[in-house]
Amino acid sequence: MSIAACIDALKAQLGDRISTSAADLTLHGQNETYYPNTPPDAVAYPTSTEDVQTIVRTCAEHACPITPYGAASSLEGQHLATSGGISLDFRDMNRVLKVHPEDLNCVVQPGVTRKALNEDLRSTGLFFPVDPGADASMGGMAATRASGTTAVRYGTMRENILALEAVLADGTVIRTGSAARKASNGYDLTHLLIGSEGTLGIITELTLKLHGLPEAITAATCRFADVEDAVNCVITTIQCGIPMARIELLDHMMVRGFNRYSDAGLPELPHLFLEFHGSPAAVEDQRKAFAEIAQEFGAEGWQTADTTEDRNALWAMRHNAHYASAALGKGKHIWPTDVCVPISKLAEAVRQSQEDAVKLGLTATIVGHVGDGNFHAGLSVDPNDPDEMRRAEQFTSDLCKTALRLGGTVSGEHGIGLGKQRHMEAEHGNALIPMRAIKAALDPKNILNPGKMLPPTNEVPLAAQ
Amino acid sequence: MSIAACIDALKAQLGDRISTSAADLTLHGQNETYYPNTPPDAVAYPTSTEDVQTIVRTCAEHACPITPYGAASSLEGQHLATSGGISLDFRDMNRVLKVHPEDLNCVVQPGVTRKALNEDLRSTGLFFPVDPGADASMGGMAATRASGTTAVRYGTMRENILALEAVLADGTVIRTGSAARKASNGYDLTHLLIGSEGTLGIITELTLKLHGLPEAITAATCRFADVEDAVNCVITTIQCGIPMARIELLDHMMVRGFNRYSDAGLPELPHLFLEFHGSPAAVEDQRKAFAEIAQEFGAEGWQTADTTEDRNALWAMRHNAHYASAALGKGKHIWPTDVCVPISKLAEAVRQSQEDAVKLGLTATIVGHVGDGNFHAGLSVDPNDPDEMRRAEQFTSDLCKTALRLGGTVSGEHGIGLGKQRHMEAEHGNALIPMRAIKAALDPKNILNPGKMLPPTNEVPLAAQ
Repeated sequence: MSIAACIDALKAQLGDRISTSAADLTLHGQNETYYPNTPPDAVAYPTSTEDVQTIVRTCAEHACPITPYGAASSLEGQHLATSGGISLDFRDMNRVLKVHPEDLNCVVQPGVTRKALNEDLRSTGLFFPVDPGADASMGGMAATRASGTTAVRYGTMRENILALEAVLADGTVIRTGSAARKASNGYDLTHLLIGSEGTLGIITELTLKLHGLPEAITAATCRFADVEDAVNCVITTIQCGIPMARIELLDHMMVRGFNRYSDAGLPELPHLFLEFHGSPAAVEDQRKAFAEIAQEFGAEGWQTADTTEDRNALWAMRHNAHYASAALGKGKHIWPTDVCVPISKLAEAVRQSQEDAVKLGLTATIVGHVGDGNFHAGLSVDPNDPDEMRRAEQFTSDLCKTALRLGGTVSGEHGIGLGKQRHMEAEHGNALIPMRAIKAALDPKNILNPGKMLPPTNEVPLAAQ
Repeated sequence: MSIAACIDALKAQLGDRISTSAADLTLHGQNETYYPNTPPDAVAYPTSTEDVQTIVRTCAEHACPITPYGAASSLEGQHLATSGGISLDFRDMNRVLKVHPEDLNCVVQPGVTRKALNEDLRSTGLFFPVDPGADASMGGMAATRASGTTAVRYGTMRENILALEAVLADGTVIRTGSAARKASNGYDLTHLLIGSEGTLGIITELTLKLHGLPEAITAATCRFADVEDAVNCVITTIQCGIPMARIELLDHMMVRGFNRYSDAGLPELPHLFLEFHGSPAAVEDQRKAFAEIAQEFGAEGWQTADTTEDRNALWAMRHNAHYASAALGKGKHIWPTDVCVPISKLAEAVRQSQEDAVKLGLTATIVGHVGDGNFHAGLSVDPNDPDEMRRAEQFTSDLCKTALRLGGTVSGEHGIGLGKQRHMEAEHGNALIPMRAIKAALDPKNILNPGKMLPPTNEVPLAAQ
């Protein structure tokens, strides 16, 4: 393996679509969280599937690692070229190729971001609902099985991708799925690639489901005396089948962060941020039904945001949770982590994680897409303080154990990347064997985002036994 | 490989849980459609996952084929032991293990049928919505990615399975997924197993999503002068986002079948059979909105079925489509086939298939879950008439080509099994390469339902290149 020889070969093939400038390398080594900067050896900017194919073939020849790169908003280091090699940046493959309003779908390149896509769709009355907060790229969102605030109503990337084009580790271009809404037609490669974090194939095109813009949208907030009241309100709401479009929990620490970062002026108590979608009558029905439940759990300070402006302000504040958490730590980095549990276990999981943070002397915010049983803890850490980093690791580890004990998962939406690998064995047990067998079968040279997702092992894959 | 030695070994291990009686073998070689009877060499009746593990390990040792067997209602021969060996009948693994109403899920063994499950759930106010018509087993429905009349509202098996337990080809027991509603935590083995037709692993337990029984349910029927009017009414309904619970098309030939088989007394014109779920107000809203659209397309003869009894009678008639199609052919077998296309192409696909049937001199009914773009053709055939069988094959082939030309798939819900293998290359192209690599990696001895889904090939899998 010679990365240098590979880059030379790629320069001859790609010309100025590959860069080794210090600025490019530095930029592509950065991340939003606590991982050390890890610049790649070169950054490629493909403009077509053929470019990606060329790059992959050349890298395969030289056994050179390739790490796909979208908007760099991933939270577990998925986009970092930790084994060196090529950062494959989809900056120049960012077009909406086709919109089919009559079939409620569109075809996009992986580099298009969710905001750009929804801007493009504006005149159609349709929208793409998956909203992880960050203005992430569609390729990255697919590769990490992203979700976010609206998943409780519209599903995650898992439910909103009809078809993919991808380049496999030997340069083979495949198309999975179709524009048909359902199929029983062979192995579900679409879902195998969704969430595979670029380790099985590189996504070069996506066919996405679109949804009609709701006729009416209303957002609202309310607060509770206690985080358990707030969570139990959510549990009852979901169990009653109220089709919430958004239902977000913010604990008192998160609210404190918003007060500091956004001057929110909210009482420092647990809040729910809500959104209702539907016909005007349906929205009113949902709001009433929710309000009745909320009242049972002692909700106070009910405020609504009916105008687009007010709603946008509310969700902009929510989407700044990462930076608001940082504001509590006075210039510290954020160690973000997330788990997902069955909804009936949510109160226990949230309470346990709050207690763990206090015990470990950590500043932590809790914010979550609680309608799905999914929540985030944002820890303020100083990467240069080994003791604090050790305690943060302990917190994350305990949180993962709590989630597994309660029948949940170690990541609802951030993915595995670098940080959660050590919990894969506890979560999956024997199921790691076929995962490794699939990786070995599809990427025998281990060039696709090596070092991500699957923990290191000396085990022999199934096929070779 | 010695199947006889394998059966001897299994007899020693399983006692009376394995049978080679002529009656058992004959029964397990039968199917609902036109495939020749193909009895297995033995039938095993496991009572636990450990039994399945024992069987798989012993079969692996002897390279003896294993074909999972549920309710034998599959329509592409998936349950037929066409390579001989063991038919693995889940008759005695048919329990609902746990119901978690608070988390809207339940855990079941693969042999439980959908009717038995819903009977069991009756007191909870919840139900499992996927309804392929036949009283299929949950294991079989998962393995064939089944769907049916309610998928337009509630999704298919793909959307309604949270977690699986499965036995792999070497006897390894794995658990995939969890009771959490979402996850970004490794390769999506759950979706890889769903629809894999028993060729990658044998499902031994399922965690299923449940849904609240709607407060109000109303069914209705109406008829149209022309199949295109009916289909265009469906297209508009879906595009308008009316959340139909069921929207089924029956062409004039299918109605004729119902008149003969169920004495339905319906005008022999294209009909839609509909169902609306929700609060009483929501159902009324949906019904009104649909009626307005239907009127635009000239709908007549509007009839509603508000009582449970009337609704059940309506859907019992619909679910007998297979036998009603047979009634048109005077004792002939039914060659059922299905495709799925993007909704905007539905009218073209239905019209084309009707014309093709007439051209080929075949008696064909069209019935479909048209809200998803999915429809079935039921051909009356005499398996002893080679010319008619050739024409039926031609019809199916042409229908698959039409579906692919229109951006759809060669099977919406029946699966690939034996009958659709010849269309896999046209549908998937290069994507067959990773499918074959995955099969080779997970079942290197090819003992799991051999001869199904993947067409025969001499190609070398990716990992060995």
